Amino acid sequence: MSWRFALLIDPLAADVSLPGYGHTFEVVDPSAPALSVGELSTQRGDGIFESIGVISGHAQEVEAHLERLAHSARLCDLPAPHLTQWREAINVAAAVCPAGECVIKLILSRGIEHGPTPTAWVTAAEAPNNAAVRVNGVRVVTLDRGLDSGASERAPWLLLGAKTLSYAVNMAALRESKRQGADDAIFVSSDGIVLEGPTSSVILRFGDRFVTPQPGAGILHGTTQMSVFEHLTARGHEAAYETITAAELEQADAAWLVSSVRLAAPVSTLNAKKLVMDAEFTASINEYLLSPRD
Amino acid sequence: MSWRFALLIDPLAADVSLPGYGHTFEVVDPSAPALSVGELSTQRGDGIFESIGVISGHAQEVEAHLERLAHSARLCDLPAPHLTQWREAINVAAAVCPAGECVIKLILSRGIEHGPTPTAWVTAAEAPNNAAVRVNGVRVVTLDRGLDSGASERAPWLLLGAKTLSYAVNMAALRESKRQGADDAIFVSSDGIVLEGPTSSVILRFGDRFVTPQPGAGILHGTTQMSVFEHLTARGHEAAYETITAAELEQADAAWLVSSVRLAAPVSTLNAKKLVMDAEFTASINEYLLSPRD
Repeated sequence: MSWRFALLIDPLAADVSLPGYGHTFEVVDPSAPALSVGELSTQRGDGIFESIGVISGHAQEVEAHLERLAHSARLCDLPAPHLTQWREAINVAAAVCPAGECVIKLILSRGIEHGPTPTAWVTAAEAPNNAAVRVNGVRVVTLDRGLDSGASERAPWLLLGAKTLSYAVNMAALRESKRQGADDAIFVSSDGIVLEGPTSSVILRFGDRFVTPQPGAGILHGTTQMSVFEHLTARGHEAAYETITAAELEQADAAWLVSSVRLAAPVSTLNAKKLVMDAEFTASINEYLLSPRD
Repeated sequence: MSWRFALLIDPLAADVSLPGYGHTFEVVDPSAPALSVGELSTQRGDGIFESIGVISGHAQEVEAHLERLAHSARLCDLPAPHLTQWREAINVAAAVCPAGECVIKLILSRGIEHGPTPTAWVTAAEAPNNAAVRVNGVRVVTLDRGLDSGASERAPWLLLGAKTLSYAVNMAALRESKRQGADDAIFVSSDGIVLEGPTSSVILRFGDRFVTPQPGAGILHGTTQMSVFEHLTARGHEAAYETITAAELEQADAAWLVSSVRLAAPVSTLNAKKLVMDAEFTASINEYLLSPRD
């Protein structure tokens, strides 16, 4: 069993600046029972999460993740997360992470059924070894997300744009991509707009321009995608949010799936069509993503 | 705290007819920690469930629920549930249920992250008192489900028709209906086809005819709806599966939301329009649903 760590948080605990604040965390055995069967996270996927990359003990892009956690909480009518408390929990977890790459997960659940309070916990674990996939890339197929690109604005109860625990469809899409002989997927709306991967953001290159789908269309605003865009812009590249059609996707000169733990995975084939992978450029992106960033 | 009960199942345990079969269940304290933070049910809503009504110790429609559990498992690429084992677990739980109405939940999760096996458990609890709502009815609003009615057939990875643990949208729809001054919702596809409630099936009456949406269109096939249709047919009523448009819904003479625990709740208002509630007829349906049925 590889290294793992877990702590439970009391999200309703008082201000962490008060004495006794240490009692708002409880370190638990990650392989022992810690959650009751009444947990609404487990019964209904009713809660939100974040996955944060950790590089040699440094948690990456913490503020962007906390901002998105708060955004997800608003969309899901969950109490606003106490960001100081979460920040401190991340610090505690990051401090015990071994050298190399790890992942910290934040989970805020609606709590126990008929219970008075949300429940929350933080886990840390060694990341899978993604060195090869960052070089060799991923074979990708497009999959219909069923929803049209207007659904997010029209029907906020669909929780598009919130990172909820209800990820069964995302997991099924990954299985489907493997069934189709690929490694991963890019979701396309029913009206043909490029969305996101089941667990990643999509960045495309057309000539010298880098583009990513508009977060407004019901997708998550990727923290890693934001970092990459910052990096590209600082290096003088043009990087823009756009509405991208499935037909345009097929014309991309290069593509990457980017996420907090796997980082930038170049797309080697898209619907069986080979894409050019610029090894040196991808390596420079991943070198940047592997450097300590706040 | 009202009465609750829980047992863990080992879904990979050998045939329950073999000696030692008793060890495939473990009764646990329902309010104590029983699940690890690595549970994929809790991290990703990755699993399936069933809710079974229990009337004075008799679990209702067990075979229909087990059949749907197996159907959901197939759609989600989970190992086929060992139905003899689940049946026995339901018996164990039902036997300890107090008099009155209870609910047994079956949960089959993909298991622990990187773990070798699915995990499974059964809980039992006293049902909320639904006596009033079965008489007074529910105020209902229609809510856009975002998906078109062809999505289910076109994109099986959307898991429509599987009762997954990823219920965050269903829960958000219930909150939205309350925000709109109602009690519950009926989902309508983006192309205007009536689907289901977030936690119920829809039955409509047009004159002497009873209709419910086709289960093919990406909705669950309701066990209670099937029972009600059997009952109606036996009493000489016409009961049919149909494609029902949102415009037709507005013309219904009466409507019910039916589910395993609340049973038949008459719709008192639909998008603020008052519907006739036939108290005597609804009472007869609920009397039937409250009788012991297999």
